[in-house]
Amino acid sequence: MHSQEFDVLTIGNAIVDVIAKVDEVFVAREKLVKGSMNLIDEARAEQLYAVMGPATEISGGSAGNTAAGIASFGGKAAYFGKVKDDQLGAIYAHDMKSIGVHFGTHKAASGPATARSFILVTPDGERTMNTYLGACVNLTAADMDRSVVEAAKVTYMEGYLYDKPEAKAAFREAAKIARAAGRLTSITLSDSFCVERHRDDWLDLIKSSIDIVFANESEIKTLYKTQNFDGAVTAIHKDCPLAVLTRSEKGSLVVRGDERITVPAHPVEHVVDVTGAGDLFAAGFLFGYTHGKPLRQCAALGSLAAAEVISHTGARPEVNLLQLAQTNGLI
Amino acid sequence: MHSQEFDVLTIGNAIVDVIAKVDEVFVAREKLVKGSMNLIDEARAEQLYAVMGPATEISGGSAGNTAAGIASFGGKAAYFGKVKDDQLGAIYAHDMKSIGVHFGTHKAASGPATARSFILVTPDGERTMNTYLGACVNLTAADMDRSVVEAAKVTYMEGYLYDKPEAKAAFREAAKIARAAGRLTSITLSDSFCVERHRDDWLDLIKSSIDIVFANESEIKTLYKTQNFDGAVTAIHKDCPLAVLTRSEKGSLVVRGDERITVPAHPVEHVVDVTGAGDLFAAGFLFGYTHGKPLRQCAALGSLAAAEVISHTGARPEVNLLQLAQTNGLI
Repeated sequence: MHSQEFDVLTIGNAIVDVIAKVDEVFVAREKLVKGSMNLIDEARAEQLYAVMGPATEISGGSAGNTAAGIASFGGKAAYFGKVKDDQLGAIYAHDMKSIGVHFGTHKAASGPATARSFILVTPDGERTMNTYLGACVNLTAADMDRSVVEAAKVTYMEGYLYDKPEAKAAFREAAKIARAAGRLTSITLSDSFCVERHRDDWLDLIKSSIDIVFANESEIKTLYKTQNFDGAVTAIHKDCPLAVLTRSEKGSLVVRGDERITVPAHPVEHVVDVTGAGDLFAAGFLFGYTHGKPLRQCAALGSLAAAEVISHTGARPEVNLLQLAQTNGLI
Repeated sequence: MHSQEFDVLTIGNAIVDVIAKVDEVFVAREKLVKGSMNLIDEARAEQLYAVMGPATEISGGSAGNTAAGIASFGGKAAYFGKVKDDQLGAIYAHDMKSIGVHFGTHKAASGPATARSFILVTPDGERTMNTYLGACVNLTAADMDRSVVEAAKVTYMEGYLYDKPEAKAAFREAAKIARAAGRLTSITLSDSFCVERHRDDWLDLIKSSIDIVFANESEIKTLYKTQNFDGAVTAIHKDCPLAVLTRSEKGSLVVRGDERITVPAHPVEHVVDVTGAGDLFAAGFLFGYTHGKPLRQCAALGSLAAAEVISHTGARPEVNLLQLAQTNGLI
């Protein structure tokens, strides 16, 4: 066991976000599906970067954002994700460690560069992600530091990991270790296209090995091949002990056994960039959950954190979330 | 002569800004002088980065910001500045080229990494800069592409260049080429501490080789060793044909021969980060000047651009400045 206990360990693709504003014409010309996450190879990354406008670089990655959110609430977070030993990798590691997140994954000495995602934000605040996974392909089961997994109340993994066989194996290994240690496991379904790619695998995984599922409306409907949200709710209720379903401005629904808890979205004056909304919702929820808060409060904390992150550019909180929660009377 | 004519060529230290929010306690503990620019070595850069919070990376550099501003107004800008052939250097080059700035300076193949400046922003919006010059030390007179200098109506240089002997030689070479081609030369005094370091050199330079001086109140007073702004105005009026003096919320003063034109600051609802205010003022002024606008209008364009850049984090415009100027009835 690790010398320290963690509230949450998150595992994901360690990605530096390269954020640029674009107009709708750009999205159409590049044949992108707005709101989606696209995996791109190095050649496409170079081509896309060459036609993009000036950008801002900021650490991201879905599970990395969640770890940052938990730390901002004052929770104890750990993170596994693979960067290369290059400038962007150093930036990524700094941004994790500087907020108190335990980040011990060894940097790759060779192979592809640290991952980046070209995040194109349209005037409506919607984001379209184009991710070059780079060094993330080198995350393997060997990176799953057993002592850290055993020391975490919840091990939370992003579905995106399933896009590479080695990372998928790492995911399964971590879930196995966590379960064997009597800890909780959690997955976010990440993206509806990602669900399409891994539906059968994930249904097996969720039934056999997952305690808490996070998904948005589109993802959970895709998982169960239905256009009907209520039908998807019934299905996930049978397959997983606890499901947390987010519905953008319609708020969220927590499903635990026969309980159904609906929590409204936290109001946002002006949506600037929706990147990280789901990641930060999970952060708020898991912070509350690992601190023994009632489910309604957990979801309210998630809504608050999501609202903060979509009110500015970038997928990590710009303010201290614990203070924000206190100001809002949520803690 | 270059195949294209440029409105303005700007020359400076090519720096990636690493922007982090800090509190006043941090500034005091690190013994920093708030609002100043400090040159730091690699060891101090590592030490400071290790204690800083999470950051955002974005291309900066004083003269680079000015070039970006001119391009945003629709002007034709070129830029000379040295980066290394590394990840941050690629980001810097992209951010210049993607906005249409001609950037042909060869990347250094070896030697120090691309420069970065740790910009610490306090809650009052003030910034304290800590700059590791890195690859900038390799900018030399050989980088002054004669054809580009000859093709630019104005060659504008940042005073910061004087902190390294080779860059200083490059500066003087560019001024010589510009003058020989019948073009205008311009300098910004950059920082009052920088003025202290180079006062005598700069007085000689301004009298012999500079057509337009940009300075803020503190810098111009430091140049003439006076506490009296009016005294400094009288002095610069004797030494340089055109001086553009900025005074933060008090607006700006343009001094040309016996003309004195005062222009108010453009109102800003909430100052978020003052980084780049002077750089963007120069951009607006020079855009107007190279398009034959009256001095009052040039200064008003400068005020507008400065106001835009201090209303958000980062030292380059987030909106199209030409459209903003049109909306404000300034063009």
